Amino acid sequence: MTLKEISRNKAFNGHLIKYEHESKELGCTMKFNVFLPENASHGKVPGLYFLSGLTCNEDNFVQKSGALKEAAKHGIALIAPDTSPRGVKVEGDEDSWDFGTGAGFYVDATEEKWKKHYRMYSYIVKELPAIIYQSLPIDENRVSIFGHSMGGHGAITIFLKNPSRYKSVSAFSPIANPINCPWGHKAFGGYLGNTNKDQWKQYDACELLKSFDGKTLDILVDVGTSDSFLEEQLKLDQLRDAAASVDRHSQVNVRYQEGYDHSYYFISTFVPDHIEHHAKYLK
Amino acid sequence: MTLKEISRNKAFNGHLIKYEHESKELGCTMKFNVFLPENASHGKVPGLYFLSGLTCNEDNFVQKSGALKEAAKHGIALIAPDTSPRGVKVEGDEDSWDFGTGAGFYVDATEEKWKKHYRMYSYIVKELPAIIYQSLPIDENRVSIFGHSMGGHGAITIFLKNPSRYKSVSAFSPIANPINCPWGHKAFGGYLGNTNKDQWKQYDACELLKSFDGKTLDILVDVGTSDSFLEEQLKLDQLRDAAASVDRHSQVNVRYQEGYDHSYYFISTFVPDHIEHHAKYLK
Repeated sequence: MTLKEISRNKAFNGHLIKYEHESKELGCTMKFNVFLPENASHGKVPGLYFLSGLTCNEDNFVQKSGALKEAAKHGIALIAPDTSPRGVKVEGDEDSWDFGTGAGFYVDATEEKWKKHYRMYSYIVKELPAIIYQSLPIDENRVSIFGHSMGGHGAITIFLKNPSRYKSVSAFSPIANPINCPWGHKAFGGYLGNTNKDQWKQYDACELLKSFDGKTLDILVDVGTSDSFLEEQLKLDQLRDAAASVDRHSQVNVRYQEGYDHSYYFISTFVPDHIEHHAKYLK
Repeated sequence: MTLKEISRNKAFNGHLIKYEHESKELGCTMKFNVFLPENASHGKVPGLYFLSGLTCNEDNFVQKSGALKEAAKHGIALIAPDTSPRGVKVEGDEDSWDFGTGAGFYVDATEEKWKKHYRMYSYIVKELPAIIYQSLPIDENRVSIFGHSMGGHGAITIFLKNPSRYKSVSAFSPIANPINCPWGHKAFGGYLGNTNKDQWKQYDACELLKSFDGKTLDILVDVGTSDSFLEEQLKLDQLRDAAASVDRHSQVNVRYQEGYDHSYYFISTFVPDHIEHHAKYLK
């Protein structure tokens, strides 16, 4: 579990560092970025994971979201992992942009062909955090999670399945009901198989929300009304309906942002609100 | 002089728009990005040009600098042009990353081979602004200019050669004395020729500063002390020395930022200061 430093850039008085490491869960070499704010040089700081969307790697978020400035302001570390195993050469993993490389969907595959390497759920929830808390000044008792699109799906499902591990959750344009949309059908059919679709539900935010009996929820979700994926792929109304079934003290705040799309320009506009949301719970 | 809209993204209540147009100066099709803040829908707004560095195109700055947020805050439009002619197929234009494509150096070439297309000075100072002020709600009497590295060189020299056109200037890590550094020798030798090196001086910030007799100067320059190009290529001490020769009311404020490098992470850290600097003069 050795971390190899690939690059380091000073930013906002802290440092953005890219690390490489061997992953046992994924059976390959993985990279991730960490932003450590200035106060991390004096002791452990809270940590905030960001899970990226389809086709992204560990760089998109830290380069394009404007989040480093906000994280520095609040003294919170950011952790930006990759979105799939890399270089594992499973046949067909490069055939499409929404399945395989760059599209791990944060599940543990059960289908024979994919189950050796495509274990992004266990990588994000267990292996990567263990490495991070062992090596970096991030307080494992104060961590939260958010993400975008496929990564918004990842963030919400991982939070709902592990409410004791994360203080808070939020998402930009999440794929909120993957068992009922084309992206989800393709990914879950491929990684989990089509013979027992019931097991898809363990990775569906709406299904997990309906049966959630953990702590009081306060989920912040932003989505653009001009997001071309809104209707067919994201299914935010279903998330709101599912939220209504949870106890009355819980809140799933889905904000429809007029005229915004699915891009990082949209994310950068609202990332200050999201980091402030998490800061409430992390500090 | 028709602008073709290529893409449009809502950001910070304004819009980032990519345009394409035919350039007579460069003899090719060019793209640029404009960020129009919300108030541009009610009338003309001030404009701020950003000239990018080697290998960049019109996208790097608007995607990575965090400047849109600051421009929106001050109600200023951003204009991000490309760094060279594109697709013109001059022999050798793709041979190196610091000459030819992506490396126009904001000069008008005089060497036979390059002089037909490599006219980035006239493109940035004359042709592009004429198109913009004719088509977009940007007030040509309230514009400023800044840039990074090769674009910092471009911004300072263009300002010093045209003090009546721009209200203010600033730069990140500019190539401040190109007639005395390897990047400048290669570019000016290539575009302007090696027979009469005296004509190089018209594009050298230090030389222009020494003979500047325009209005009182207030130039803001940030550079990182860990910038690997600082000593050999940027020559910021020479800029400070040249500034000392200008009248005592003028100021060339070169800030050496401890530990920062040449990257967009550095730019994003200090871009709020730069846009605030320009806002003083634009509003």
